[in-house]
Amino acid sequence: MKFRIILDGGLLTITGRVHGTFSSVFLLEDENRKVLIDPGHIHTIQDIEENLDIPPEEITDIVLTHVHLDHAYNSIFFPNATIRIHENYKGKNYRNFGPLIGQAYQQMVDSWEGRVETFKGGEKLFNAITVIYTPYHSKEHVSLFIESENFGNLFLPGDICMTKIDFYDIMRNLRTDKVAEIVKEWTEKSDYVIFTHDTPYKVK
Amino acid sequence: MKFRIILDGGLLTITGRVHGTFSSVFLLEDENRKVLIDPGHIHTIQDIEENLDIPPEEITDIVLTHVHLDHAYNSIFFPNATIRIHENYKGKNYRNFGPLIGQAYQQMVDSWEGRVETFKGGEKLFNAITVIYTPYHSKEHVSLFIESENFGNLFLPGDICMTKIDFYDIMRNLRTDKVAEIVKEWTEKSDYVIFTHDTPYKVK
Amino acid sequence: MKFRIILDGGLLTITGRVHGTFSSVFLLEDENRKVLIDPGHIHTIQDIEENLDIPPEEITDIVLTHVHLDHAYNSIFFPNATIRIHENYKGKNYRNFGPLIGQAYQQMVDSWEGRVETFKGGEKLFNAITVIYTPYHSKEHVSLFIESENFGNLFLPGDICMTKIDFYDIMRNLRTDKVAEIVKEWTEKSDYVIFTHDTPYKVK
Amino acid sequence: MKFRIILDGGLLTITGRVHGTFSSVFLLEDENRKVLIDPGHIHTIQDIEENLDIPPEEITDIVLTHVHLDHAYNSIFFPNATIRIHENYKGKNYRNFGPLIGQAYQQMVDSWEGRVETFKGGEKLFNAITVIYTPYHSKEHVSLFIESENFGNLFLPGDICMTKIDFYDIMRNLRTDKVAEIVKEWTEKSDYVIFTHDTPYKVK
Repeated sequence: MKFRIILDGGLLTITGRVHGTFSSVFLLEDENRKVLIDPGHIHTIQDIEENLDIPPEEITDIVLTHVHLDHAYNSIFFPNATIRIHENYKGKNYRNFGPLIGQAYQQMVDSWEGRVETFKGGEKLFNAITVIYTPYHSKEHVSLFIESENFGNLFLPGDICMTKIDFYDIMRNLRTDKVAEIVKEWTEKSDYVIFTHDTPYKVK
Repeated sequence: MKFRIILDGGLLTITGRVHGTFSSVFLLEDENRKVLIDPGHIHTIQDIEENLDIPPEEITDIVLTHVHLDHAYNSIFFPNATIRIHENYKGKNYRNFGPLIGQAYQQMVDSWEGRVETFKGGEKLFNAITVIYTPYHSKEHVSLFIESENFGNLFLPGDICMTKIDFYDIMRNLRTDKVAEIVKEWTEKSDYVIFTHDTPYKVK
Repeated sequence: MKFRIILDGGLLTITGRVHGTFSSVFLLEDENRKVLIDPGHIHTIQDIEENLDIPPEEITDIVLTHVHLDHAYNSIFFPNATIRIHENYKGKNYRNFGPLIGQAYQQMVDSWEGRVETFKGGEKLFNAITVIYTPYHSKEHVSLFIESENFGNLFLPGDICMTKIDFYDIMRNLRTDKVAEIVKEWTEKSDYVIFTHDTPYKVK
Repeated sequence: MKFRIILDGGLLTITGRVHGTFSSVFLLEDENRKVLIDPGHIHTIQDIEENLDIPPEEITDIVLTHVHLDHAYNSIFFPNATIRIHENYKGKNYRNFGPLIGQAYQQMVDSWEGRVETFKGGEKLFNAITVIYTPYHSKEHVSLFIESENFGNLFLPGDICMTKIDFYDIMRNLRTDKVAEIVKEWTEKSDYVIFTHDTPYKVK
């Protein structure tokens, strides 16, 4: 499948005023499938819309690294997509996250009704995406390893390693736990590391 | 009625990456009514939630300066509120705003069904808010003049004068059209000018 | 001369926390001259550095639309450039702008010593840039009309019309004063309108 | 000494456009000393200026957690302060960081000439600040433990744990390396954890 960046994510949190961090949005496509990876949050839809030349109803699948609003809220705007997500997403009482936030989560999860396919980690989706279970940011979090036609092998750590700064810290051995181990292992097999909140890094 | 700032708005637009500008959120309340003025956009709900000590279902009214997502989207999270808005909001085909943005607008407007009260400008709401019709940003845009118990008279120009920078330009006669005239006229009657995308200005 | 965008500017002001609005940075070059138009502010130097493939000491000229830090502070990093600016910049007591801000302004203006060339409006610089005096944002503010080799005629209103939103308001006659008149007049002669805090607009 | 927050920091990085992340600014004072901890970056000076009711020349000391521009650049605006910093700051060739960034670093470090006092970690400054050497973000990085008169014991991890999100990950054992160990150990002795890029956390 061919890989395309629809939006490069960024960091933007000024506690007390705005939680505006937004995730990268990626597309994998071939003649049969149009797969969005992390459709992002609503305050970037105008920017996503300008780059996504596919009508929303033709998106066939959405793969989510995890269920946080800045990665997943826009899933409500792709009515025909199968939502592919780790099975642990089911154990949460989203409505209880807060009087307003809880409603936003519940509205999103409700919109998925009848179109969720769960994975556990270890699967290969569409013969292109290997799912790596990495519950170090939230208990349903996964990283992805993507074999693309046009850019070689891509490692998407997700929010266990959001930016190049996080990545460099790991590569310089300033972080040395399980997360660091996983990031190093998969980076070795990859041509690019693609980030949820930064532009891509070319390996070598 | 008593006036309270729930969130001070800000400007944040980096075209091509994020349209994250967010509006101020205000509350007017007495023993009978809890009125939100511009409930804001979803990427600030966590910040709003921390300051709004009233359960969302107890908000009785939402007054909108105009129908832009950064001011109005959060209206979907206050299910019992009467939406008070200029009648011109009806003339628009929101679904056509774009494949994704259009859905966001339509979802919001649909959520208001059966609970909209329109005004034309000139009305006085709750014996406290004078509606001033100011169609210089969008054709349903209104400014508000609020007589509060605790902070005296407040002028809220809305998005015809978003920030103190805009305001100072008008006061220094660098802008001299109809908008400038309106802003000056109402500022003279006010103790504070309150902004949709800035902190308040104390008159004199 | 050839025109190039080094950085697309953005809006980012969250009063009380950060005044991070940043200006677009443009380059005009031929075999003799490398001219920066508005070198921008320091919190974007890493981003400017990645796009500016010319050593800073080889920049021959800096044209400033006006003396605000978000447009002009980076001028301190181009030691050989002639600073070209409206003569009214001289009338201000920069040190008095505030205990910290005043120092930042003074440091910048001091760094220009011995290398300032002023204009009054009406001049044509480098046979390519027409200076238009537009004191509607600050009293030394100018707009620019650029005849480029590679993109035709470009109108840069500067901060009298910062974004496409401001521009559309003028084109829809929601603003009708002197500023609106100037913006319309020069837009008619142009192939692109280029903004200080937004991406460019292609005229028809 | 009495502790005061001058500015709550935030995260703001949109690679390719703006690196606008800004650090919290803290003040420790008694009758003899006015100590700034991390004076922050220049795009927040207007916001700092509004909260800092002390003339810049009366600041006696600046303690730096590490030498990154978003924490340290404003040090150039406090001409009489002794700069207190880990001795490893000396080993770096700042000018080589890049053609523009390198100049910004060099200008800052040059401005410190004749007024630097280094520490190694383990010292107690002003009988109030314990220096903890934590080279996990940059090799001169320190964390601070502050015994304040008005808010009890404060732990400032610095950029090894920038936000509450980072902190919660450590407290939930999602991060388990040396950094996590240090953060847990000092949090146990503290009444508040204060962050470089977030609002404070009250322990218990």
